[in-house]
Amino acid sequence: MSIPDKVVNRLSLYHFILEDLRDDEQYISSTKIAQLLNIDDSQVRKDIKYLDNSGKCRVGYDAKKLKKSIENCLGFEQKRDAFIVGAGNLGAALAKYDSFKDYGLNILAMFDNNSKKIGTIINGKEVFDITRIANLSSRLNVEIAILTVPKEFAKGTAQYLAGAGIKYIWNFTPCILDVPKDVKVWNENLIGSFLQFTNSDEKEEK
Amino acid sequence: MSIPDKVVNRLSLYHFILEDLRDDEQYISSTKIAQLLNIDDSQVRKDIKYLDNSGKCRVGYDAKKLKKSIENCLGFEQKRDAFIVGAGNLGAALAKYDSFKDYGLNILAMFDNNSKKIGTIINGKEVFDITRIANLSSRLNVEIAILTVPKEFAKGTAQYLAGAGIKYIWNFTPCILDVPKDVKVWNENLIGSFLQFTNSDEKEEK
Repeated sequence: MSIPDKVVNRLSLYHFILEDLRDDEQYISSTKIAQLLNIDDSQVRKDIKYLDNSGKCRVGYDAKKLKKSIENCLGFEQKRDAFIVGAGNLGAALAKYDSFKDYGLNILAMFDNNSKKIGTIINGKEVFDITRIANLSSRLNVEIAILTVPKEFAKGTAQYLAGAGIKYIWNFTPCILDVPKDVKVWNENLIGSFLQFTNSDEKEEK
Repeated sequence: MSIPDKVVNRLSLYHFILEDLRDDEQYISSTKIAQLLNIDDSQVRKDIKYLDNSGKCRVGYDAKKLKKSIENCLGFEQKRDAFIVGAGNLGAALAKYDSFKDYGLNILAMFDNNSKKIGTIINGKEVFDITRIANLSSRLNVEIAILTVPKEFAKGTAQYLAGAGIKYIWNFTPCILDVPKDVKVWNENLIGSFLQFTNSDEKEEK
């Protein structure tokens, strides 16, 4: 069953909550989850209905079952290898973001064109010369690139990645990339996110 | 008129495209925008209907008018001051993200508890001792904090921020924050975002 993006997003937030429970907290209610996220508990129950085995019982949800069920449903076990392209602050921050691994995203290496950065290691990930990406992506069978280069290099780099066999670009730059149809781009639009945040506030104030 | 989050997000992407046009590109069609984002052009036209004066004409949209109209509608001119809390890689990356300013987000200062970082300046933003945040937020009238501390400090720091008068937390940590009702949290859920990306791919493949 296809799950809407918003639901995927919320299910992953529920998973954060479940991860954080103490060992003696065997059950959790939709009300508790809803309260922590400041949303409606009917919303929580609706989202959880997308799962196969939610662990629902008289006193709430069995926390371990619910957690497992979110993991299965969102595919945490399907490991996906990726490269980070751009070893600046954002690239380094993402390379150090160890939580990614728990959710199936495995960052194998980083790429940059700055000779001072090439050869350094960030959180166990080596920074390679960007010209080596075609070779390494085919050898390691990596199709996902996380693009964190400065704005002015975004478009050129994206086209370079497409030529190097990358099929998915998770784009952290505030640029619209123009790549061939067979390359999928997911815009991590931080500005849009900020505007949603401030906009939702105004909505509530009205 | 209240605009759905997804539409806000897409309108900001359209704005990126409009910003990027050459001076001699006076008009743009919904088809062109749709093609760059790999979405339906009917979607683009529907989104643009939320705007007051879209600059629609026989040959497409007047690019300058459409751009201005998105700016008005999403409130780019309402400057919002914010602090970054956590001067690690992610905090530094966001401090260096100059595009924020164009979209109304003005980062005034950063905070950390690491004495090596306190007093340093990142892209013109001074890093202050976290204990000074209550004083500075009230003096400078700043209510927004961008939270980029390591996961293990996220909850404690959020509570500290709430006590220091912060009313909005843009949360980049993979943690659900437990703060008083009057503090609004916007979860920048990178993991959820990645899962949406990989999930949408599966949807299309089916």
